[in-house]
Amino acid sequence: MSLHPDSSLTRLFTPRSIAVVGASATPGKIGAMPVSLLRQHGYDGRILPINPRADNIQGLPTAPDLAALDGPVDLVILAVPAAQAAQALACARPGQVGGAVVFTSGFSETGESGVAMQAALCDIARSRGIRLLGPNCLGFMNVRHNVYATFSPAPANGAVAPGGIGMVSQSGAFGAYAYCMARERGLGLSHWISTGNEADIDVADCIDWLARDADTRVIMAYMEGCRDGGKLRRALAAAREAGKPVVVTKIGRTQAGAQAAASHTAALAGDDAVYDALFRQYGALRARSIEEFFNLGYALDTWKQRPAGKRLGIFTISGGVGALMADEAQEAGLSLPEPDLAAQARLLERVPFAGPRNPVDVTGQVVSEPGLLLATADDMLADGRYDALAVFLAAAGSSEALWPTFETFAREMRARHPNVPLALCALFPPERRRELERLGALVFVDPSAAIRTIGAVSGLEAGDAVPEQVEDAATSDAGSNALSRSGLQRDAYNEVQAMEVLREAGLPVPDCTLATDADAAVAAAVRLAGPVVLKVVSPDILHKSDIGGVKLNLSGEDAVRAGYAAILDSLRLHRPDARIDGVLVAPMAPKGVECIVGVHRDPIFGPVVMFGLGGVFVEVLKDVSFRLAPFDHAQARAMIGEIQGYALLQGARGAPPCDIDALADALVALSRFAHVHRNDFASLEINPLLALPEGQGALALDAVLIPNTAVDAQ
Amino acid sequence: MSLHPDSSLTRLFTPRSIAVVGASATPGKIGAMPVSLLRQHGYDGRILPINPRADNIQGLPTAPDLAALDGPVDLVILAVPAAQAAQALACARPGQVGGAVVFTSGFSETGESGVAMQAALCDIARSRGIRLLGPNCLGFMNVRHNVYATFSPAPANGAVAPGGIGMVSQSGAFGAYAYCMARERGLGLSHWISTGNEADIDVADCIDWLARDADTRVIMAYMEGCRDGGKLRRALAAAREAGKPVVVTKIGRTQAGAQAAASHTAALAGDDAVYDALFRQYGALRARSIEEFFNLGYALDTWKQRPAGKRLGIFTISGGVGALMADEAQEAGLSLPEPDLAAQARLLERVPFAGPRNPVDVTGQVVSEPGLLLATADDMLADGRYDALAVFLAAAGSSEALWPTFETFAREMRARHPNVPLALCALFPPERRRELERLGALVFVDPSAAIRTIGAVSGLEAGDAVPEQVEDAATSDAGSNALSRSGLQRDAYNEVQAMEVLREAGLPVPDCTLATDADAAVAAAVRLAGPVVLKVVSPDILHKSDIGGVKLNLSGEDAVRAGYAAILDSLRLHRPDARIDGVLVAPMAPKGVECIVGVHRDPIFGPVVMFGLGGVFVEVLKDVSFRLAPFDHAQARAMIGEIQGYALLQGARGAPPCDIDALADALVALSRFAHVHRNDFASLEINPLLALPEGQGALALDAVLIPNTAVDAQ
Repeated sequence: MSLHPDSSLTRLFTPRSIAVVGASATPGKIGAMPVSLLRQHGYDGRILPINPRADNIQGLPTAPDLAALDGPVDLVILAVPAAQAAQALACARPGQVGGAVVFTSGFSETGESGVAMQAALCDIARSRGIRLLGPNCLGFMNVRHNVYATFSPAPANGAVAPGGIGMVSQSGAFGAYAYCMARERGLGLSHWISTGNEADIDVADCIDWLARDADTRVIMAYMEGCRDGGKLRRALAAAREAGKPVVVTKIGRTQAGAQAAASHTAALAGDDAVYDALFRQYGALRARSIEEFFNLGYALDTWKQRPAGKRLGIFTISGGVGALMADEAQEAGLSLPEPDLAAQARLLERVPFAGPRNPVDVTGQVVSEPGLLLATADDMLADGRYDALAVFLAAAGSSEALWPTFETFAREMRARHPNVPLALCALFPPERRRELERLGALVFVDPSAAIRTIGAVSGLEAGDAVPEQVEDAATSDAGSNALSRSGLQRDAYNEVQAMEVLREAGLPVPDCTLATDADAAVAAAVRLAGPVVLKVVSPDILHKSDIGGVKLNLSGEDAVRAGYAAILDSLRLHRPDARIDGVLVAPMAPKGVECIVGVHRDPIFGPVVMFGLGGVFVEVLKDVSFRLAPFDHAQARAMIGEIQGYALLQGARGAPPCDIDALADALVALSRFAHVHRNDFASLEINPLLALPEGQGALALDAVLIPNTAVDAQ
Repeated sequence: MSLHPDSSLTRLFTPRSIAVVGASATPGKIGAMPVSLLRQHGYDGRILPINPRADNIQGLPTAPDLAALDGPVDLVILAVPAAQAAQALACARPGQVGGAVVFTSGFSETGESGVAMQAALCDIARSRGIRLLGPNCLGFMNVRHNVYATFSPAPANGAVAPGGIGMVSQSGAFGAYAYCMARERGLGLSHWISTGNEADIDVADCIDWLARDADTRVIMAYMEGCRDGGKLRRALAAAREAGKPVVVTKIGRTQAGAQAAASHTAALAGDDAVYDALFRQYGALRARSIEEFFNLGYALDTWKQRPAGKRLGIFTISGGVGALMADEAQEAGLSLPEPDLAAQARLLERVPFAGPRNPVDVTGQVVSEPGLLLATADDMLADGRYDALAVFLAAAGSSEALWPTFETFAREMRARHPNVPLALCALFPPERRRELERLGALVFVDPSAAIRTIGAVSGLEAGDAVPEQVEDAATSDAGSNALSRSGLQRDAYNEVQAMEVLREAGLPVPDCTLATDADAAVAAAVRLAGPVVLKVVSPDILHKSDIGGVKLNLSGEDAVRAGYAAILDSLRLHRPDARIDGVLVAPMAPKGVECIVGVHRDPIFGPVVMFGLGGVFVEVLKDVSFRLAPFDHAQARAMIGEIQGYALLQGARGAPPCDIDALADALVALSRFAHVHRNDFASLEINPLLALPEGQGALALDAVLIPNTAVDAQ
């Protein structure tokens, strides 16, 4: 983990002095809340109320404005109307103020005049070296250092415990609710940050800073959109490098949600599928609901040791619920290996009618023989075949008489099997639940939620490698060839040129020749020494086959010559106007599975690579996966495996399995090319990219490359 | 609703007298629990402890056995070891005892000797007219009548409130847990029943009885399998007819779960996809988790008026969470119509920066202006465009100061908009939550769970028609033709015969002729007056095309004659051994989308119809839907709409939309045929069933019909 936190954010989030502009003595007022919260929670830095109309606020002497303060102020809280905010900051001397939190609304979220006011505020802050949180935000809390720079009433109704979760939310309302949920569920926070309008500091900045913050182990983030895709990527990479899992909720999964999000944020939210790809790529766990958001945060925070792999042991006192848990485990991608045969035998010795496989079902017997609990778990876990253990205790959890058994169980499990995190499913009274959590166990009421959560957080460390960095890739292989030095041409590419570009980018393409007369076509066919295909190449013809522009499977000089003539005849007849660059001579393609690969430029995240299967898969089922370019072989394999039609590549319907490694290599090469030339092209599609049988590679058979003619092209 | 409860179950579940065989004075013993629970809960019938070794149990006089009791005993609780259970029942006089609950384990769940013991117990019960619940069960509770015929410790830790939910669970452990969850979540129960080994009474019996029980409004059922599919269908139909929704959890959704279920129940669980079809068909809501089970039961029980349709209004004080809810709404199949324009204008007048569409976002403004809550809801609901309203209150729900606002809101909503059920999403303290529930509102912590739940219970009443009954269908159209009177033949069907059967069953088939010489083929082609296809018909040839057995698109006498000869030549060459029934002459099929339709006989539920699209859809994606035969047009349309590739039938890729009504008609006809001939065939596949463009119908092009040669054929 590299410890280079943004020191300006560190000064803002861990201030030694806080000025409150618009500090008020009237309880409940937005300017009264921070002063009283800071004092109530024992903040031990300086609190400097600023109010030109009062000498004294809540017992503290005031200053009329920032200029009247002698020393440096790490943090300024602005709780004045929008129109006065810029003016208040303008009183600061350059370097005097580290950061400002702007509670006030009425800026960019309200329309044009608000946008202008926000820009003016930013200008003043920038000119004085002040970092801005907000405006239109609920502020932040540094829970461990008692910094309550917020006017949210949430902490007044009860403070969360200090802990390892750094929480950041673009939305104040979501953030306040999440704060209350954390309190209810007993999660401990390091920081709570709401970013609001994100005039300067955004969610990505906070993730990046929390990734390097020593008090934070787990990051929980809520976002509605993002304006700087590269920054978000770097932030997620920093968190991954630091070994801090990121749980993220982003709105706008569906069309209805995206529409609602767009009208709410009035900002470009971007394509949700691209965010989804981003989160997968950087190992961030995307939560679809607030419940899931908290289940994930809860597991990642409570378990000091996370499951190293996907092998789950299920231990139940109800065979039926065990089966329900097995259902969920399969859907969550967990495996359920059986216990060692010797362990099964020991289990059956103890409880003859038990289910000795996995789920291991010791039946209600455990109620009269509490020792079964630990004995069974010991047997299951003796040979290290499980990465986590989920236990369903049915109604027994509510039994006061059995509490000592459960408490001992959790304690001993931690002592004897520290590498096998434990989840208990039962209805415990709240104080019992907290006790078990302190012993390192998760407690769930719903066993299915327990399994889903385990599935999501299992094997996180496995894919530990940080994805290729945006900055680094420019110096990679794809960047060192002729194309990248010169950039792509500005004119449209014909098929031959497009294929040539792909070849230089390292993609497998057939040995094609553009023939401009029949002799050249014959020569090319002779050189290829096998049946060939002829295809007209013209910028004016999209559907070549429809007008006789393609001839397949031609063998021998005569056939090639005749085919060439037939194509030209047909074109003269059907499209006398068309410009003709020539006729492409290529070997007949072998049999394979047709895939479609595309690259488009996302306005936020740059080039995005799409993968899918040909035919109905892309066109009807929209069965595609995405990754942000560039990416590595493992990511490419993952994106291939994500599509529903994956079985077809594995050899469905009696066909041989495809060369998935070669397919992945092609995707990697394309992703590097797309990254290096990210400003040069608008879109690129390879259709089909043929997946050949295992060991035989892949082959790009046709490509369309549209150069970028936009102003940002270099 | 027909009120013909099974009176023997009524006697068992609402007993006026209860004998406890094996009654004990020792607290905690299985025979002590019922007596103490009955007395503790004020059961007002007679309690008759049976114990030959004590005069008096818990202050009540005992009898040595059932024979020693003079009068009738509605219910006997058997709490004696397995070996003594049959003997105890044998003491009863015929008619004396209504029903028996057998707690004891050690019967069929333990292996062969247990199976024999269970059979003996059943014989004795049957001979004395005694209905049996169990053995190996936790008994039951009639909550409204204080009948606690259970030894579960769950009610001892706190009783659930009496209410409208009838709960039945095959598993005792699940049942006990569910009882505790109901208590925690404040759900009221009418009955709680655990069926255990189901020697006599099974879950279906209980659903059927609860469907006719006046105290029960909603049925919640947990099952692991089913031995009598017809009974379960009738039970679900009875519940539907009575307007009582059934929420069901059935284990074994996945391969892992099914494996665990099979090893647990040691009984044939049946094909899960068939259960899934059954539940859809009868409008039972299948819950995948205990959490979902309770969310559904909670909503169905709390809302006196259920949402009539799928139109949801979302009202939020956080735009972001509103979008999150919109995401979930789309996935739950709910629509989000915008408010009336006038309502939007009024809303913007009140809160200029509000989101006036749906989700309606009034922002945090509601905290300082609580009146906004009711005013906004009134505006949204004024013109009846919403079937339900979901409100997200963020952290404001935790505010004591705002409680009167929320309480008034819920009260006024019920008074002013009784037809629009309300769900509130916030963190309320438990007693506040209960209060809101008493006012008819649902309360959820997780807004996504609220939306999912609303989606599942919305529009339930819409598909109110009870599915065609198993009994009735035999007298339907398909039953009145020649085939049904005679039954199917026992020998294999060739293609022509199979097509003839389909035609008689009412399915659309092309006008085919089996020609046994070239002249006949020509005559048939002339009659068809258009291009024809010739196909060899032989019981020995499966892949006709591969060996030149098919000639397409033949026009004119010469072509037909030549085609006929070519087929015979080719067969003589490739398959001189094959028996040849003739050559099929059929019109060339028009263009359409190829579907596959099949029927197989499920061992539990009889004939099951499958629908899917041809090609990769069935073969690679397993994209199919099922329904139990027989079914009606609405069900057929539903099963067509369920497949992922449905877009292809709606006219994807520039193709015209298909004649889905004709497709549905074909499925209905097939389902009736399959039902009538349920004992006559083993399987039937139509491949392809061609879906033609709208208005042009459908066409079965090829069929394979395998007669049933099993012993149960008639």
